[in-house]
Amino acid sequence: MIVALAGGVGGARLAWGLAQVLDEGRLAIAVNTGDDFEHLGLAISPDLDTVMYTLAGCADRERGWGRADETWRFLEALGALGAPTWFALGDRDLAVHVERTRRLHAGQSLQEVTAHLCQALGVRHPVLPASNEPVRTIVHTGAGELAFQDYFVQQRCAPAVTGFRYDGAEHARPAPALAAALEHSELEAVVLCPSNPYLSIGPILALPSIAAWFARRRVPVVAVSPIIGGAAVKGPAAKIMRELGAPVSVLGVCDYYGALVDGWVIDEADAGHAGALRERGKRVLVTPTLMTTDEDRSALARATVSFARTLYHSAP
Amino acid sequence: MIVALAGGVGGARLAWGLAQVLDEGRLAIAVNTGDDFEHLGLAISPDLDTVMYTLAGCADRERGWGRADETWRFLEALGALGAPTWFALGDRDLAVHVERTRRLHAGQSLQEVTAHLCQALGVRHPVLPASNEPVRTIVHTGAGELAFQDYFVQQRCAPAVTGFRYDGAEHARPAPALAAALEHSELEAVVLCPSNPYLSIGPILALPSIAAWFARRRVPVVAVSPIIGGAAVKGPAAKIMRELGAPVSVLGVCDYYGALVDGWVIDEADAGHAGALRERGKRVLVTPTLMTTDEDRSALARATVSFARTLYHSAP
Repeated sequence: MIVALAGGVGGARLAWGLAQVLDEGRLAIAVNTGDDFEHLGLAISPDLDTVMYTLAGCADRERGWGRADETWRFLEALGALGAPTWFALGDRDLAVHVERTRRLHAGQSLQEVTAHLCQALGVRHPVLPASNEPVRTIVHTGAGELAFQDYFVQQRCAPAVTGFRYDGAEHARPAPALAAALEHSELEAVVLCPSNPYLSIGPILALPSIAAWFARRRVPVVAVSPIIGGAAVKGPAAKIMRELGAPVSVLGVCDYYGALVDGWVIDEADAGHAGALRERGKRVLVTPTLMTTDEDRSALARATVSFARTLYHSAP
Repeated sequence: MIVALAGGVGGARLAWGLAQVLDEGRLAIAVNTGDDFEHLGLAISPDLDTVMYTLAGCADRERGWGRADETWRFLEALGALGAPTWFALGDRDLAVHVERTRRLHAGQSLQEVTAHLCQALGVRHPVLPASNEPVRTIVHTGAGELAFQDYFVQQRCAPAVTGFRYDGAEHARPAPALAAALEHSELEAVVLCPSNPYLSIGPILALPSIAAWFARRRVPVVAVSPIIGGAAVKGPAAKIMRELGAPVSVLGVCDYYGALVDGWVIDEADAGHAGALRERGKRVLVTPTLMTTDEDRSALARATVSFARTLYHSAP
């Protein structure tokens, strides 16, 4: 059994691949909630939705967020009322936010609500919020502290980043199903998907129980590098690494995760970094990691699981 | 200056006519809020929206509710999530509910929110909620008490009605702009639009301050009959009158309003009732009251205002 940590498009793509190659009951996907926010009175969970839509096969593949076959009549009408439209809400996507909000207000946990939405959309593997309790990523920039969506959407990641804070993380507990999955007797490995380390995986690792699990883990942790050939496939990861003075390569990501990761899956374009990773005590798999087609996703998932199992069986 | 009380399609149509024949500053439209309810976490005000959309020229003329040129992508997606879809919310209509809810949660009054929405939609005359405070129509039926939307939409007015209650009315104050309009030095008359007496006008008259105003009024009140030739043009008015044992004619409506109305505007089809109305001490105008075309609406509005002014100037 594998637990994957994910958030954003790259994470969702590998999660989709893992869902193809692992049977039901053999995979749980824990998703970042640091991007979550309340907007127009609606509880919005962008990363949960990206993973959920991707696994359901209804994600928009061009945009990288929201639903395929989307329309924007609500947003147009909202704009005509002078209401804020900086966060794009498609007509079909909106149904998920309204129903999530309704169920949360009725007292369901985010894990319960997400399970319901996933079931309704035909997602077979559990998609779990990292926590039922609010964790909110705050971006420290030269222009002051910014709420995540302010930084990411309103300011399009323009301000130079000096650091991050994950508000609420210190008191947040992992979602019960995530805690259970991490303690599952058949757990073989945890996979860090190729998601933004600071914005997608960092908020999950910031939960004290998760950090403690990593410190005393008995199964390997395998990370797939979100940086290929010195660039992020999508999103601001490379820009942020540059701003933080980190090498924009898998080595920079490796230094960020440090001892939390045992094995690295890197692209053939980065084979030259394999030596440096091994010097840092890491196991390395070099394989194509760019996920353009469905076949790419499944192949990377298969290679990652196989690599993780090798580490699992070779553990001391 | 005229204050019109309205709710529902017939009321909205006459309100539109009044808005054509009266200059800005000469008309205020007070709208029933007894139909308002919270649904999916959204504050929904069906009668305010019907009047607002009708005055803005963006109401759907076929359905009698909601917006013209509407789409239903949100509702379809919502249904696929297993969420309740019994109350139809169009994609464009939804923008109004979301923005209304957002502004109410931010602390604005329903009057303020409605003013903003009307301004954004290009409505020139003030559309006022009867009250900023919640008034909720409860329908007493043989099958027990039903919340209004349960009766009206979910059960399609099928249960036989035995009476009504307007929850909250006894403590609700008129919206400030309505209170001001009723005390305006240039007020000439109040017009009861051809709306359902029990469901649209009754909840407004149930406010103690409004009832007190009617009791001590110094301007005439003119009502346009919602019953033409023994039938309601739209909605359950005739069915309810029958269930309550009232004559299904303008006489039944006249008995309901009693001394609150000074003059009746009735259709030519009901000219035979003029005598009975006059016996009850009422002034009567017989004129075409069926509003099919825009011209019908303006003509009825013009006739009603002219009739009201006659009463105003002939008052003792």
